[in-house]
Amino acid sequence: MDLAALLASERRAVDAALDRLLPPVGAWPARLHEAMRYAVFGGGKRVRPLLVRTAYRAAGGRDEAALEPACAVELIHTYSLVHDDLPAMDDDTLRRGRPTVHVAFDEALAILAGDALLTEGFAVLARYPEPASFAARRAEACRLLAAAAGSSGMVGGQVEDIEATGAAPDAARLERVHRAKTGALLAASVELGALLAGADAGRRAAFGEFGHRLGLLFQIVDDILDVTGTARSLGKSPGKDAAAGKLTYPAVFGLETTRAKLADLAASLDAEARGLEGEGSVLAGLVDYVARRDR
Amino acid sequence: MDLAALLASERRAVDAALDRLLPPVGAWPARLHEAMRYAVFGGGKRVRPLLVRTAYRAAGGRDEAALEPACAVELIHTYSLVHDDLPAMDDDTLRRGRPTVHVAFDEALAILAGDALLTEGFAVLARYPEPASFAARRAEACRLLAAAAGSSGMVGGQVEDIEATGAAPDAARLERVHRAKTGALLAASVELGALLAGADAGRRAAFGEFGHRLGLLFQIVDDILDVTGTARSLGKSPGKDAAAGKLTYPAVFGLETTRAKLADLAASLDAEARGLEGEGSVLAGLVDYVARRDR
Repeated sequence: MDLAALLASERRAVDAALDRLLPPVGAWPARLHEAMRYAVFGGGKRVRPLLVRTAYRAAGGRDEAALEPACAVELIHTYSLVHDDLPAMDDDTLRRGRPTVHVAFDEALAILAGDALLTEGFAVLARYPEPASFAARRAEACRLLAAAAGSSGMVGGQVEDIEATGAAPDAARLERVHRAKTGALLAASVELGALLAGADAGRRAAFGEFGHRLGLLFQIVDDILDVTGTARSLGKSPGKDAAAGKLTYPAVFGLETTRAKLADLAASLDAEARGLEGEGSVLAGLVDYVARRDR
Repeated sequence: MDLAALLASERRAVDAALDRLLPPVGAWPARLHEAMRYAVFGGGKRVRPLLVRTAYRAAGGRDEAALEPACAVELIHTYSLVHDDLPAMDDDTLRRGRPTVHVAFDEALAILAGDALLTEGFAVLARYPEPASFAARRAEACRLLAAAAGSSGMVGGQVEDIEATGAAPDAARLERVHRAKTGALLAASVELGALLAGADAGRRAAFGEFGHRLGLLFQIVDDILDVTGTARSLGKSPGKDAAAGKLTYPAVFGLETTRAKLADLAASLDAEARGLEGEGSVLAGLVDYVARRDR
């Protein structure tokens, strides 16, 4: 199967599982669940679930056990987008070509739908079916995701991103923001796959570090797209980060240096992925996909 | 030890544990952790941790293992207060006599501090030290709390509370709101204690149902205090719910009938608690404490 077909098939599997895991349409309170589903089924690329599942297989996992934890990560990622878009934060009205949740519903419902999605992420992680021997791994998975999503990870990164807006370009601060804001959950996705496959601590850490570097790649592409993308390809207004005075790679290094960094990092990650046994080549394909994406 | 001394001693134990469990003062990002601590150490009565620990002992638990899960519940409760106070929700500027988090800091930080507290609640639950044989109970505890806090529980109740504001008095709707908004987490606190003590499913359910009725008692007192309390005793403006057109017991049944319901429910819960072995009398003391509280 080539990568495009694999991505499409993975996306269908994850979408079907998310549909099954979320409270059904019409369940009380109907409007809250409508808002949650609106956020979750908004055309996401499902990069994080794909990372969980690919890493799981690359680390030796051989069954479907990683599907529900992969969905848990996507629920947590989705909540973070809903809250980041709020008027008090990035104040975005468009995401993936559609009105953001607080525009389509209202601000209170967007806050609460985000809260519920975060909670549901941990619910899914805690309840997914698995062999009894997995019990310890499940608690460890909760710890890993909570650490990545919490105040020293994703939420912390969003705080520093807001604080850094309008500040002078600062490479160290930029790296800190990106490593926490998007990097932590992407790294945790890769590490989670290894953890669930039963990898030992050293191998888990190696997967996590690979995930961190892949997260950096992802963010560099994001920053470049904000400068070079079109509203049509992005599904949101380009140039918004630059106009808002956000700390980005092009703002700190300029566009050409940023592109060179991207190429170097992609090459190094590609080589690293190909060095892995098992599904390393799929992981390498993912590196290529992330490096070349146009939205 | 009398109840007042027990409450004070419990509160100190919980406060010390929360201080130890939260990221230290000054940890990156400093302002986020400052906001989280501002919210957590705001003079809360620690009713939920006390319920977890009392139920744990009443169900036969005999060591200190319930302290950290009790703190996890308090973190989740605290996040819900921070978000409920936001301008897009109840728009409260005062809580327990102090400016609310979005007033003392700002709105973005209040949203993010709430997000981080919710996440930290699950982190604490997933990582607390315990015998290895507890692993299954820990995942079960995550499920229980996530269900109580999520879209069919606390968050769902807040959504319906907002939707019901200004609507005609409706006893069934009132009960649904209260059962979910405050009742679900109070009930889960009691059930969690039983679960951690190793109670079987039937006993767990009985504790949970007791918790639901205690939650109802708590909410009826809250509604009465909104009508009869003073700003000084409440630490917030009284009459706010009534002025906002919130669905409350006095609004649906009138103050006198509400007081009669409160007395009946308190008497029935008291008898039920005294019927329990072990620390049932402490649970009965808690019923009395909740029924008579003036803030």
